[in-house]
Amino acid sequence: MSTALDIEALGARAASMIDALGSISASPEHLTRLFLTPEHRRAADLMAGWMHDAGMAVTEDALGTVRGHWHPAGEAAPRLLIGSHIDTVENAGRYDGCMGVVVAILALEAAIRSGLRPAYGIDVLAFGDEEGSRFPTTLSSSSAVAGVFQPSMLAAEDAQGISFEQALRAYGKDPAEIPAAAYDPNGVIAYLEAHIEQGPVLEVEDEPLGVVSAIAGASRLSVTVTGEAGHAGTVPMRLRHDALLGAAEMALAVERIAKADRHGMVATVGRVHVDPGAVNVIPSRVVFTIDLRSPSDLSRRDALTRFEREAHKIADHRGLGVVISAFHEVATVPCYRDLQMRLGNAVASLGHRAVTLPSGAGHDGQAMSHLCPIGMLFVRCRGGVSHNPAEYASPSDMGLAVGALVRFIERFELPQRGGDARGAQT
Amino acid sequence: MSTALDIEALGARAASMIDALGSISASPEHLTRLFLTPEHRRAADLMAGWMHDAGMAVTEDALGTVRGHWHPAGEAAPRLLIGSHIDTVENAGRYDGCMGVVVAILALEAAIRSGLRPAYGIDVLAFGDEEGSRFPTTLSSSSAVAGVFQPSMLAAEDAQGISFEQALRAYGKDPAEIPAAAYDPNGVIAYLEAHIEQGPVLEVEDEPLGVVSAIAGASRLSVTVTGEAGHAGTVPMRLRHDALLGAAEMALAVERIAKADRHGMVATVGRVHVDPGAVNVIPSRVVFTIDLRSPSDLSRRDALTRFEREAHKIADHRGLGVVISAFHEVATVPCYRDLQMRLGNAVASLGHRAVTLPSGAGHDGQAMSHLCPIGMLFVRCRGGVSHNPAEYASPSDMGLAVGALVRFIERFELPQRGGDARGAQT
Repeated sequence: MSTALDIEALGARAASMIDALGSISASPEHLTRLFLTPEHRRAADLMAGWMHDAGMAVTEDALGTVRGHWHPAGEAAPRLLIGSHIDTVENAGRYDGCMGVVVAILALEAAIRSGLRPAYGIDVLAFGDEEGSRFPTTLSSSSAVAGVFQPSMLAAEDAQGISFEQALRAYGKDPAEIPAAAYDPNGVIAYLEAHIEQGPVLEVEDEPLGVVSAIAGASRLSVTVTGEAGHAGTVPMRLRHDALLGAAEMALAVERIAKADRHGMVATVGRVHVDPGAVNVIPSRVVFTIDLRSPSDLSRRDALTRFEREAHKIADHRGLGVVISAFHEVATVPCYRDLQMRLGNAVASLGHRAVTLPSGAGHDGQAMSHLCPIGMLFVRCRGGVSHNPAEYASPSDMGLAVGALVRFIERFELPQRGGDARGAQT
Repeated sequence: MSTALDIEALGARAASMIDALGSISASPEHLTRLFLTPEHRRAADLMAGWMHDAGMAVTEDALGTVRGHWHPAGEAAPRLLIGSHIDTVENAGRYDGCMGVVVAILALEAAIRSGLRPAYGIDVLAFGDEEGSRFPTTLSSSSAVAGVFQPSMLAAEDAQGISFEQALRAYGKDPAEIPAAAYDPNGVIAYLEAHIEQGPVLEVEDEPLGVVSAIAGASRLSVTVTGEAGHAGTVPMRLRHDALLGAAEMALAVERIAKADRHGMVATVGRVHVDPGAVNVIPSRVVFTIDLRSPSDLSRRDALTRFEREAHKIADHRGLGVVISAFHEVATVPCYRDLQMRLGNAVASLGHRAVTLPSGAGHDGQAMSHLCPIGMLFVRCRGGVSHNPAEYASPSDMGLAVGALVRFIERFELPQRGGDARGAQT
């Protein structure tokens, strides 16, 4: 069966729900909604009300994740999880995270109202800690759901010195209940998430929806180049060991390596510090950062090796020293191929071309991948802007995202008994 | 006649005089001796005593410049001026400036004691304001001597809000007397200065002394490159407008242009500011400085034109904006060819090869060139280091500088009547 869909009406409802959610903030001037705050409580209650109105039973777990349950085939049937997060960065946009929860609720409501009776259940999840804006932790909500929550996280403190554990208790939760928040992997089919792209690809491709191939792995490096200071007027060019010129060549090498990659690698030199930083002194020391991401861990590691080789070659050539240290490393999480195909088909059924693209930003799917296969649907956002009040996705694009989830749900079939929905993660 | 010279003994005396001068400081921990301070007074008095002991008559002008006079052919005979400065930067070395005054005094003393009776007079000048460390002015002492002092300089204030004029009066001087400090150009033959090189060339060439071809002209530019900020993980390489990568290419273009120059041009990117400067954000704006110096104004102007062209090409290619503005510009002051030749011969007579090199740093000669032809002798300094407590010239190298000045003085002949010592400044 095919549910009747009024894309424009669904989009308009998504937009008004996002407006309502966006008004819940710690500040009247801008949107800031942190984990385990009164704003979190109000947003969670709003979610619970919408889930209930859509026809779901609602619970809340030990980390405050709101769960809407629709189990037409009974509690024992395997479940599809669809979710995103309702916390924000400081001075945030209204779509990052929130949009994914809203379109999931609208898709479930449409599916339920159309009389669909799938052989599986669906849980909609509204996580409270994806951004890591309050505590120096990220993905704690989805980690708990996936059964990979690290109890050491509870000691983390926010800027006011309040610990995660104190904040959790003040929110009315018992840390001892966290293990019970974990799903049984045997009862879960997959995790799906709709999210704004946070990049410009869909806009450039002129398509509303994209299917994520993988959440890119990332490496962050600090590179220190050392040369010799000297008077800008008196040291001839041939006798210089200018750390900045070495760093400039290295930054261009980073770009060259990323551009030569065939997997969609991106690399960025974002921070540069020059010593002594005076107009008339040859730079003696430059420290810069590299942020390198690729949906292929193999290509990322290969790029790191290539960069290290090139940096040392540049340094040797210029009589400079170079020290490279990695301070952050996250592996790639591939999206499950069958889910990519099904999401692509759902998009195509709405008359659109699903663009396949990696996600360069991190998502709850990284934690959820420890529990089950994951799939992600990207929604075009204006200018590729996010983490900014200017963040925007159009109502009609959001309507299409609801539509794609509905089509996905109604076409989804449980794998044959004896098979394995997760299969080989290739 | 040829004066008997004990180079080692002269060097040892220079070293002990520099030690004595170096002990006069505003701070016991490091050497700081600013214009029109009690330290200036003490250093000036020390100079006056040494000049007197060497056989000179001593006066002091309206800016505190100490002048030692030796006029064996009478007051009306034309004069050779030999000088340097006794002020320092903050936390200075002991040689910059001071060494030039000390070797001039020792050379005069040797010439006087040897019974030399040249047909011209010599004035040794100890300037008090070359570095511009106290007021936002430089070369005010030599400007007054050269007759190009700008009265507007008197309004300049130091860090404590004390004006140049107030400080001058407190030092016991009358600003109304400044015009009288100017020499009559018709009575002056030339200005000579010995100075530490402040660069590594003589050390690399393994020679103690160098003859300066010109005090290089300088341009300072501020370059602003504008691109588009973006998420380091989500914007594909092909869609980026990364201001930092454009700036990196421009910095390397600056180096390429300077290296291709055949006049000894040097160019330095010394200061770089990256916006927003976050690890995971594509740089939207980079501001960097260029300090470009050349002993040929033509080559410097040509280099600026070439840089502008290359910067715009780089910006266009990357879809960036670029704005270049010059905030400082000083023309080249060539050293007089005849003086270069005579200084070179004097060095050769001591058994050394005189290395010809431009001065990339500024000197009192820039002001003095408004009065008369100038010549400069450079003395090797260890590691090319200056403006730093580690600044060092060896006693034997300083002894050779004294010897070279003595040989210059004893061989110098007044031009024929009707000729012009200054000739064409080509």
